[in-house]
Amino acid sequence: MSDPLLPRLAEIVGDKNILTEAGAAESYLTEERGLYRGKAVAVVRPASVEEVASVVALCAEAKVPVVPQGGNTGLVGGGVPDETGRAVVVSLNRMTSVREVDIDTGTMTVDAGVTLQAAQEKAAEHDRLFPLSLASEGSCTVGGNIATNAGGTAVVAYGNMRDLVLGLEVVLADGRIWNGLRKLKKDNTGYDMKQLFIGAEGTLGIITGAVLKLAPANRSVETAFIGLNSPEQALALFRRAQATAGSALIACELMPRIGIDFVLAHGSGVRDPLSGSHAWYVLLELASPAEQSLRETMEAILEGAIEAGDIEDAALSETLDQRAVFWKLRHLLSEVQKHEGGSIKHDVSVPIGQMPAFVGDATAAAEGVVPGCRPVPFGHMGDGNIHFNVSQPVGDDKQAYLARWGEMNEAVHAVVTRYSGSISAEHGIGRLKRGLLAEIKAPVELDMMRRVKSALDPNGVFNPGVVI
Amino acid sequence: MSDPLLPRLAEIVGDKNILTEAGAAESYLTEERGLYRGKAVAVVRPASVEEVASVVALCAEAKVPVVPQGGNTGLVGGGVPDETGRAVVVSLNRMTSVREVDIDTGTMTVDAGVTLQAAQEKAAEHDRLFPLSLASEGSCTVGGNIATNAGGTAVVAYGNMRDLVLGLEVVLADGRIWNGLRKLKKDNTGYDMKQLFIGAEGTLGIITGAVLKLAPANRSVETAFIGLNSPEQALALFRRAQATAGSALIACELMPRIGIDFVLAHGSGVRDPLSGSHAWYVLLELASPAEQSLRETMEAILEGAIEAGDIEDAALSETLDQRAVFWKLRHLLSEVQKHEGGSIKHDVSVPIGQMPAFVGDATAAAEGVVPGCRPVPFGHMGDGNIHFNVSQPVGDDKQAYLARWGEMNEAVHAVVTRYSGSISAEHGIGRLKRGLLAEIKAPVELDMMRRVKSALDPNGVFNPGVVI
Repeated sequence: MSDPLLPRLAEIVGDKNILTEAGAAESYLTEERGLYRGKAVAVVRPASVEEVASVVALCAEAKVPVVPQGGNTGLVGGGVPDETGRAVVVSLNRMTSVREVDIDTGTMTVDAGVTLQAAQEKAAEHDRLFPLSLASEGSCTVGGNIATNAGGTAVVAYGNMRDLVLGLEVVLADGRIWNGLRKLKKDNTGYDMKQLFIGAEGTLGIITGAVLKLAPANRSVETAFIGLNSPEQALALFRRAQATAGSALIACELMPRIGIDFVLAHGSGVRDPLSGSHAWYVLLELASPAEQSLRETMEAILEGAIEAGDIEDAALSETLDQRAVFWKLRHLLSEVQKHEGGSIKHDVSVPIGQMPAFVGDATAAAEGVVPGCRPVPFGHMGDGNIHFNVSQPVGDDKQAYLARWGEMNEAVHAVVTRYSGSISAEHGIGRLKRGLLAEIKAPVELDMMRRVKSALDPNGVFNPGVVI
Repeated sequence: MSDPLLPRLAEIVGDKNILTEAGAAESYLTEERGLYRGKAVAVVRPASVEEVASVVALCAEAKVPVVPQGGNTGLVGGGVPDETGRAVVVSLNRMTSVREVDIDTGTMTVDAGVTLQAAQEKAAEHDRLFPLSLASEGSCTVGGNIATNAGGTAVVAYGNMRDLVLGLEVVLADGRIWNGLRKLKKDNTGYDMKQLFIGAEGTLGIITGAVLKLAPANRSVETAFIGLNSPEQALALFRRAQATAGSALIACELMPRIGIDFVLAHGSGVRDPLSGSHAWYVLLELASPAEQSLRETMEAILEGAIEAGDIEDAALSETLDQRAVFWKLRHLLSEVQKHEGGSIKHDVSVPIGQMPAFVGDATAAAEGVVPGCRPVPFGHMGDGNIHFNVSQPVGDDKQAYLARWGEMNEAVHAVVTRYSGSISAEHGIGRLKRGLLAEIKAPVELDMMRRVKSALDPNGVFNPGVVI
């Protein structure tokens, strides 16, 4: 309260945009999973890039660390301060303007604090699609999506957030503003600096604005819920769908039977679209901006897969309601796991062709650590991205099971490494996985990362303790 | 010949892979357009990443600059040494192995010296597509394509080279090897270091290998050659095609009548596919991996465009031969300009929506500099990328016209800047445009670029005088 920085911060953003009381600042200092509870000099809420710049310049001068924060929906603790209480949290949640929609160029320029859902809705108002889609889209922000290179369910067709960003506006570690808000699909004039800030988790600069690519709105959609016997078959189905539908393939999500069982047991408004039971399921979706139906293409995929013996059964959604039910099964999969006791999480990816072998080996590895544990591997099949979550054995003590988190991680990550995969496919490193970096990256790569950090933030102003 | 470095280089790559005689090294020291004629201690041709690493380590120790070179097809002098003769040119043209094709994952791992055409052919052998396509594909190399973030005619659907690279192997400025040959679509474990080397024109490291993304092979294709009245109509047609065909739209190339006239006058095996004359032309191509025909989609685009008054006439290719003729008109457009006297070149891009206005203003600007000059603006409509080449007035002296290159550039680039465009859309900066960087980039961005250069190449080993 008595920190000499406070009146100077108040001069920049106004008294009411400085939160210091435990009550008001609370939601900015803890994150969703409750893994981290930080402290801060203050949470400040600037309203413009100029105010962000002034705050950063002031903190840099005072040698006070700055923690940038978007919607605070991250899962690795990258947006909350540490426990020292030395940092200032800069929340972007007052910067919520859509600055421009440029239909002729197919871009939208937004403040970093715009929620993903607001960006999607604004695009839809103009009969366009902003394709990124995540569970937390109602509260996560575009700035956070960029800082974490967010993924989600539409990556197979539209790419990660990195692929959807044409330009950035960033406040640098000394408070200078970089206006890189370009709308160009092609620009080879030197190093592509925006790439460094995308996925840097707020450690190199504060993203305050962005130019996003818009896609044509889809007018036809076909969704299938498919039962099959193995991840090998799911991979064959994916390849077939890709070769048949090309980029009309917009989702290919893998789910195990146990996950469906969990959803049916604990979710509401859900039912099994298929009559029999299958070891694995794939939610396959095609979409196109053309008016013409994709039914024929979907049927060609499914008929070919049946002939090849790759699938056991399939249901096609006949209505948008049915489609919603299919997706609900997928969307609830993560949440319902908490009703089955402790769940140890892994957000991993492997080369797509290695996915079936990985699932088998990782399951064996998990069972080696805790016999009777229940792996629920699900996720973005088309990207090789598996949320390899492991539920506790039925009847075991939850805390005793969760105490083995590190041991389980180690066993599963060892399999990931054997398959040249990633231990953080879409969630990032944050505070949670920072200690693992030295194990998974070669010294030469860590050295390059440190050099980049030193080059752009020599005094370590931004987000100390995160990533590197 | 007597340079003390030579025997030590020979120990690494062998005597016969060191070229010092003017004759043998000549083709490595000059570039296609004849703008630069460099000198070098030697041209060395290593056969492996280890040999590249040893050469760089040796040069770094001896404080000798290193100029990486691929197929030497660049248009901005980024791959040839300067005139001091201090540098060693490292040619990758002995590293031509396709290391692996991984069909299940949809990737191909190649040596940097593989030509683009060889990569395309290897993908086709496996019934896959490597989509990058350029005029120089027979001799340019994948490493050079990555170092320059190459573009070409397929960017509208498949992206620039940056979008086609999953992993890199790079030799750093101190001779260390970074093995970043990952095959992952999602990997959020720290800074995405490969992005820095892509498009850095060999100034941060030598790319020795890469993991490339493969796309499904296309099985159906529809190509139309369309006559229309203005760039505004071409933009409307592009938007219609995009909204109707989505990502099946794989090319949208704009050509002016004068360009077609040049091709018909100087090209062989070409004819005008349309009976009347039109001010502008668009080559529109749809393709899909599905077997089903795209004829209906193409017809829907053209019928809609005719109804809206956006196009005047169109020819559909009925055979692959006809398609080849359409493309020949486009591909010859660049080359035939030399038969019309001097041509002053600009490789620029603007936000797509600004393209029509840009073409109008840039044409006026060019005519303001040299009355009677003949602008031939053509290129990648769907990317906002125009090759704004300006042929000399009929009957004028060629050298006198070319002497006004800088003046013409200045006038056209001023228009580019007014439309927030790029003065190098796909060719890069190299030596040719290095002097322009300070004019077009804000000091804060140049400063970031210099910091990155210093961080990764503190002693300036790589490609001095290029980019930054």
